[in-house]
Amino acid sequence: MRNLHCALYALATIFCLTVLWRDASAADALPSWNDGPAKQAILSFVAATTDHASPRYVPPEDRIATFDQDGTLWVSHPLYTQAMFALDRVHELAPKHPEWKKKEPFKAVLAGDRAAMAKFSEGDWAEIIAATHAGMSTEDFLAIVKQWLATARHPRFQRPYTDLVYQPMLEVMDYLRANGFRTYIVTGGGQEFVRVYGDRVYGVPPEQVVGSSIATKYEIRDGRPVLMREPKIFFIDDHAGKAIGINLFIGKRPYAAFGNSGGDREMLEWTGAGDGSRLMMLVLHDDAEREYAYGPANGLPDTKVGTFSQSLMDEATQRGWTVISMKTDWKQIFPSDAMRD
Amino acid sequence: MRNLHCALYALATIFCLTVLWRDASAADALPSWNDGPAKQAILSFVAATTDHASPRYVPPEDRIATFDQDGTLWVSHPLYTQAMFALDRVHELAPKHPEWKKKEPFKAVLAGDRAAMAKFSEGDWAEIIAATHAGMSTEDFLAIVKQWLATARHPRFQRPYTDLVYQPMLEVMDYLRANGFRTYIVTGGGQEFVRVYGDRVYGVPPEQVVGSSIATKYEIRDGRPVLMREPKIFFIDDHAGKAIGINLFIGKRPYAAFGNSGGDREMLEWTGAGDGSRLMMLVLHDDAEREYAYGPANGLPDTKVGTFSQSLMDEATQRGWTVISMKTDWKQIFPSDAMRD
Repeated sequence: MRNLHCALYALATIFCLTVLWRDASAADALPSWNDGPAKQAILSFVAATTDHASPRYVPPEDRIATFDQDGTLWVSHPLYTQAMFALDRVHELAPKHPEWKKKEPFKAVLAGDRAAMAKFSEGDWAEIIAATHAGMSTEDFLAIVKQWLATARHPRFQRPYTDLVYQPMLEVMDYLRANGFRTYIVTGGGQEFVRVYGDRVYGVPPEQVVGSSIATKYEIRDGRPVLMREPKIFFIDDHAGKAIGINLFIGKRPYAAFGNSGGDREMLEWTGAGDGSRLMMLVLHDDAEREYAYGPANGLPDTKVGTFSQSLMDEATQRGWTVISMKTDWKQIFPSDAMRD
Repeated sequence: MRNLHCALYALATIFCLTVLWRDASAADALPSWNDGPAKQAILSFVAATTDHASPRYVPPEDRIATFDQDGTLWVSHPLYTQAMFALDRVHELAPKHPEWKKKEPFKAVLAGDRAAMAKFSEGDWAEIIAATHAGMSTEDFLAIVKQWLATARHPRFQRPYTDLVYQPMLEVMDYLRANGFRTYIVTGGGQEFVRVYGDRVYGVPPEQVVGSSIATKYEIRDGRPVLMREPKIFFIDDHAGKAIGINLFIGKRPYAAFGNSGGDREMLEWTGAGDGSRLMMLVLHDDAEREYAYGPANGLPDTKVGTFSQSLMDEATQRGWTVISMKTDWKQIFPSDAMRD
């Protein structure tokens, strides 16, 4: 008898929830998006992949969506946030490294020489990363990043970096999750760096953050095992590395992928090469007033961050990827902004 | 009004399910385990970590359990299954490599020289892995493994390898999942190899398989991206690599870890170094009749596979890890076996 009662209550609940669910779906799940092809592409994709009757239905266990971070989920201008962190760390560590005053690239950082810093090579950055991101345990690194995020401010917006996430993209992540998708971050940035705030800021738990990493070494210290961060690159999760990283960490091909630069090209190609319905989107930074406008696709000079080249735009057109215009598709940029129709 | 009805039905459902749940828990979740300290350790751990009122309660998102595969979830004697696969592949590929007839280690494999094979160095095995596991796309590799698993038979048991999984361990995985844990495989074996059957055999999806891997290269072939497997080791997920791999792929410390050999030592140390309730278990192969007995902890000669050394046994005793005796703790070894009290 108890089982029967349970079954009846459960049925009633399911019926009720189904009705409420439809009501919720009918309401706008993407309030800070203007109507247009970008918003429509997201809604159509979700409708097709979650409808049991659709030939493009995707079972829940395969509903994977991947998101680049810098320039796709949060501001990456004038420098990647993690580069800002590294530069601040150089200043903080300088008293322990008197030799840096005379040694590049540290000398330029300590002198605040922006012209020199703008010309830093990948080798210069690798040296800075090694000096600022290694030599401590994984636990200590998490604490250092957490502390920095709590106090650092973006030079233009004068707000914590974690406030400078794109409200429309947060809505897409929520909407996909509400429809049974798991949202992964697939970033060229540091995996351990993003894991510090991924859950709080994006609702993405550590096991769903794929990123670049340095080698770690297992050691027993005071009878307790620690993983020490070594000044040695282990994996670069960018360009082809994003497709490789997705296969390595997830082992399933995404059904949706979101990027904003050449570093995301292979992730979108890899996603689009799957069968059925796939959603590939690129955020175009064309809003100098509310955020930034940069890159050749805007007819503007190339930059070191988030380059949206003409060749990427051509590939998007050819392959049917959807370009999101921040200026025309988004009513609102940051969570704290007012809406603008 | 509709919302109120829904809420009432939902409450009734939750109440009913809670009662049913307790009834189910009271039934034996581990039927092929004999009563004893090993079974008790599992039950106590789950009770403590899932009881909201317990100081050792673990929220569902942190309920991670990691399992070694070879010797912990399935038979790894007389050779690792993946080594059997590699040897079969050497025979299959031999017609394309006439030079192998005169070149070690391939010559010994083709001649079926078991004495020589037993003495293969790690370098010999690396050469065999490179020749048999690389040079194809990731998709082609999955198809090759799938085909092999369908036809290959274990030399002693004359059954498919995927039949030779340990029924008591399947029950532990099910029991943990039923209590909100996510079960990960953390194997020294190949990540892509295990992903082929992990879901079907263990209920573990690809994204929860952490293992050793070779490098892959992103290429466009016939306009379509592929990941080509390269003859180059990328990551060895064994010994310290298991702690490193857990941090890299999961980013959370497990609450439970299961192994059977020295290769699992660091995974258990890493797990045990967390606070709260942690469960560390080691399977001892001490049942020559139903499976195998080997290794110094049994007072038997060392072997190349799944070595349970005396030093591992000493560490288990010192740190309070639980040793599972296949002979006394398990009523049944394989799913197709009869129970034996």
